[in-house]
Amino acid sequence: MPRDKVPNAVVQRLPGYYRYLTILEEIGLVRISSQQLGERMGLTASQIRQDINCFGGFGQQGYGYNVSELRARIGEILGLTRAYRMVIIGAGNIGQAISNYQSFRDMRFEAEALFDISEEIVGRKVGDLFVFPLDALADYLANNAIDIGIITTPKSAAQPVCDMLVEGNVKAIWNFAPVDLSVPEGVSLKSVHLSDALLVLSYHMTNG
Amino acid sequence: MPRDKVPNAVVQRLPGYYRYLTILEEIGLVRISSQQLGERMGLTASQIRQDINCFGGFGQQGYGYNVSELRARIGEILGLTRAYRMVIIGAGNIGQAISNYQSFRDMRFEAEALFDISEEIVGRKVGDLFVFPLDALADYLANNAIDIGIITTPKSAAQPVCDMLVEGNVKAIWNFAPVDLSVPEGVSLKSVHLSDALLVLSYHMTNG
Repeated sequence: MPRDKVPNAVVQRLPGYYRYLTILEEIGLVRISSQQLGERMGLTASQIRQDINCFGGFGQQGYGYNVSELRARIGEILGLTRAYRMVIIGAGNIGQAISNYQSFRDMRFEAEALFDISEEIVGRKVGDLFVFPLDALADYLANNAIDIGIITTPKSAAQPVCDMLVEGNVKAIWNFAPVDLSVPEGVSLKSVHLSDALLVLSYHMTNG
Repeated sequence: MPRDKVPNAVVQRLPGYYRYLTILEEIGLVRISSQQLGERMGLTASQIRQDINCFGGFGQQGYGYNVSELRARIGEILGLTRAYRMVIIGAGNIGQAISNYQSFRDMRFEAEALFDISEEIVGRKVGDLFVFPLDALADYLANNAIDIGIITTPKSAAQPVCDMLVEGNVKAIWNFAPVDLSVPEGVSLKSVHLSDALLVLSYHMTNG
């Protein structure tokens, strides 16, 4: 199946596979059956085989998957073969938390600068990162090939900031502001909806 | 279909429906077809009808769904008919960000106390919330019927804190620590894996 035909639902599951296989590799497990993998992922063995077959043949009838090989291959598919340069717009609590997140660095997602409009924080450092004024963003993007822009601004600033990132040739946007953003074709957008998790919890509390 | 048989995939989609219908109601849209709803949700019209039929009949052939009615009904199903009391364990950046999150309050998910072990922050206030020492958590839970415990501690503290919450009769746990937690049957657990979003972005950047 050509890469661009991989169903979106499969793509969304790949990070979960990668996370789980990383843990299995850490504890030294050598192989896993599609059934065991399925139990963990909440899928049937046949769904697991289908998902993984989207990327060519892996595994062997009766043996299952080699954990390290499958993890390495999924990592490759996910693009974890190089580093990604990131900037964060909005140096509030979420922006600061993200900038210090060790597991991002472990996978070579590297935040290199924060931007904000507040005079209280501009010019200071947060962890290792310098906080630039938002006015400096366009220049920064012109001089640095940034892969991912992370938006942690209030709602009202999010779309203008998103437009600045797109203008500066950033091809992937990760949005934490609780608002729906528009991006042109060719730019990937991923929005985090934190309250969705709370609603799933309240669903379970209500429906037993 | 009895409530406890609603497929997990459908439950996971309900918050998205609710979010989208809330926006549509805000902009004054009165009705929407299953096809329009499907385009937004990345599903076919027939999947939308199937999802919604899990909760009994809605909508009318040729009319579609009444936006406000469907939103209210999904809100009910999600348990948004009452307030939820929450505590946050870990008063670092993410804990502080969560405690100030207005959209949670709008849906009556009410954080009422923070807990931490750091002497620098215990005894202070973050926004409206007092930061208690972690030692006080068991007593606090014994005296207050807390619905949801939010874990924003470092990795190593997450499972012990989770156990304290369960011991204190908290029935829903929202975990931000990058670690897999165990909870007994009857307790709902939702873990946020922030890096999954980055991996989907790197996938798209790599695979076009």
